Amino acid sequence: MIFDDEIELLRKKGLLRIIRDRNALLKSSRKDNAFQDVDNTAFQPYGSSHILVEGCEFINFSSNDYLGLSSNRLIMEAAKNAIDIYGLGSGASRLLSGGTDLNSKLEGIIAQLKGTESALIFNSGYTANISVIPAIADENDIIFSDELNHASIVDGCRLSRAKKIIYKHVDIQHLSSLIKKESGKKKIIITDTVFSMDGDIAPINDLYDICLKNNAILYIDDAHGTGVLGNGYGALSHFMIKPEPWIIQMGTFSKALGSFGAFVAASSEIIQWLINKTRGLIFSTALPACIIAASIKAVEIIRDDQTLIKRLWSNRERLFQGLIELGYDTLKSQTPIIPLLPPPIFSTDEIKNVNIFSEILKKNQIYAPAIRQPTVKVPRLRFSVIATHTEQDIDKLLNILKSVQE
Amino acid sequence: MIFDDEIELLRKKGLLRIIRDRNALLKSSRKDNAFQDVDNTAFQPYGSSHILVEGCEFINFSSNDYLGLSSNRLIMEAAKNAIDIYGLGSGASRLLSGGTDLNSKLEGIIAQLKGTESALIFNSGYTANISVIPAIADENDIIFSDELNHASIVDGCRLSRAKKIIYKHVDIQHLSSLIKKESGKKKIIITDTVFSMDGDIAPINDLYDICLKNNAILYIDDAHGTGVLGNGYGALSHFMIKPEPWIIQMGTFSKALGSFGAFVAASSEIIQWLINKTRGLIFSTALPACIIAASIKAVEIIRDDQTLIKRLWSNRERLFQGLIELGYDTLKSQTPIIPLLPPPIFSTDEIKNVNIFSEILKKNQIYAPAIRQPTVKVPRLRFSVIATHTEQDIDKLLNILKSVQE
Repeated sequence: MIFDDEIELLRKKGLLRIIRDRNALLKSSRKDNAFQDVDNTAFQPYGSSHILVEGCEFINFSSNDYLGLSSNRLIMEAAKNAIDIYGLGSGASRLLSGGTDLNSKLEGIIAQLKGTESALIFNSGYTANISVIPAIADENDIIFSDELNHASIVDGCRLSRAKKIIYKHVDIQHLSSLIKKESGKKKIIITDTVFSMDGDIAPINDLYDICLKNNAILYIDDAHGTGVLGNGYGALSHFMIKPEPWIIQMGTFSKALGSFGAFVAASSEIIQWLINKTRGLIFSTALPACIIAASIKAVEIIRDDQTLIKRLWSNRERLFQGLIELGYDTLKSQTPIIPLLPPPIFSTDEIKNVNIFSEILKKNQIYAPAIRQPTVKVPRLRFSVIATHTEQDIDKLLNILKSVQE
Repeated sequence: MIFDDEIELLRKKGLLRIIRDRNALLKSSRKDNAFQDVDNTAFQPYGSSHILVEGCEFINFSSNDYLGLSSNRLIMEAAKNAIDIYGLGSGASRLLSGGTDLNSKLEGIIAQLKGTESALIFNSGYTANISVIPAIADENDIIFSDELNHASIVDGCRLSRAKKIIYKHVDIQHLSSLIKKESGKKKIIITDTVFSMDGDIAPINDLYDICLKNNAILYIDDAHGTGVLGNGYGALSHFMIKPEPWIIQMGTFSKALGSFGAFVAASSEIIQWLINKTRGLIFSTALPACIIAASIKAVEIIRDDQTLIKRLWSNRERLFQGLIELGYDTLKSQTPIIPLLPPPIFSTDEIKNVNIFSEILKKNQIYAPAIRQPTVKVPRLRFSVIATHTEQDIDKLLNILKSVQE
């Protein structure tokens, strides 16, 4: 009727997206007991590493639940207790009566983790970027944005009406040459810390220097860095950079922290400004208390216990080295996000080829959906390694990817 | 440093927003037992009607938890059970592995409630509007938008790059004259059903006729109508309008349904299109299963039990009639949202006057924050009556507003 031609076009190109929901996976379905030791850290081993979809159990390489915290018993208990005390929905925006004392507690400990004076909770990473960027930049300002920045940054820049200048992916020389030419009320450099589809890390140390030289604000989206880089503290810790009043750190509770929502950590002054100006905060119902309670517990676990973070990185190394040995192109991955550009074994049509690769993995109980346009320019598989994968899980994936080559 | 001048300016104008979070309110603090009968419907009486802020207990007139469902025991239990089965965070976007079978169940029953073929869950009302509008409209299209539409609609229109034509608030003649002049690939009329700061209802029947005549799409934001109008079914039921393939119904789970998140209900074709095009869905982590489970239970309660909806409306009538008798200006409120323009008793400066009114209410244990620019043009108090207010709660508010006049 209204969109049927467009839908048909996507289908023909192999780009039609469909939703496949998970079913409940019972603990008993997990046969190995590789995680007996981890159970001591109140951890449920079946986390996001295995999922049940359309009746089949898969090893899941599509989750951002990097530490498996979504099924940590302490986090689950914290959320259930909060439901008993505060009920479910918050009933109003934070500025009316939607927040509880848990909100300020979470903002306190996330500010502590990030080394800032203050922090502010948002309903999602998408909402944070789309609200904060227009709050700090307007048509008089200039934003310098990495060409591979997340879609939410792209949309936030558009809403801000600021002049947007795209620099080549992590290309410091290109950025330097561009920023010298421009003068404006405010200059803001915005970058993902870990790029979600390429798995590489932005050169935050170089960006820091450029900001200093050019009196620019640095806005980092640490969604995939928080809980992963710098012993879990995030990208600034990874680069041993001290937070400054001109650095704004955004991050999420929905990935390594196993919960939901997002935050911005910055100076008290910037946070006060955001409370007054961010439309996605002012015009949106606050998160339920149970979600905030879960996030508090998750931040505490990351702060106090390195067990899971170490396991995450050792799993990451096992998969990464295995892929390199097999000769696969993993772009410039430096993190648990490992893209894989499949060689043209099944088709010279990139989209068709990556779709077939993904289907073969699926037939072998490996869940790693193809990532295609418009999310990325070059179609790829994207593996996300998490702490709750066993060595067997990773070796199974490597064996299948080996057999495909034969 | 960066924003201190702007913050100081807001402070001087009396427009600086600050956050006051709630504390946990124990059931034992509620002395009356007016809700013994409602307890049969598994309802916890202390819901959102009373809150504790900075050590003081208030009767809360700032909540959109219209039916008090946020503290309904069945909903709380449903969420807790879902945590036990699915853990906390979903770990990924819906299109990767972030959804569970609960998502499709919720979409099924909300589509049933709204009389549509299909439905799609979003992370919030703000995210839904800001994502869906750019998915259905582009620079070739024309959007006709009521001047008092919610901020999320304004932002969604801006992101869409469509030509936007504002019509005077609920002014059908104005809209008719504007729409005749325009031709475009697509025409879309967008309106709130219940306007969140004025409490009046859009003339959906007239808008329906205009759409029919002009081959336009009708997009309604039923955030404050769902669970409130049309025996809880929402605005189309209220006007006895049959859903059509060219009507898109958006609504939220975070207000009358006492949970969190939002939905769009429409034809299967439109929903399939939205799955492929809405950036706030594709580029955002899916809601936790516990939130989805709570929303399912809330929709079932609204569908099966009219007790709370009747109580909401009888409370609304009690407050509304009382305010009218006292001679207060409540604009054109037709719903549980009742604005009050305070007469210039304390100051001729509108902002100062409304701030003082709000403070007097607060000193008398009534929580009804002042709503000011930029949320509204004319500063006001906004009362939101809910099913869990007692008659004593409402009479107390009326008595204070009477004493202010003396």
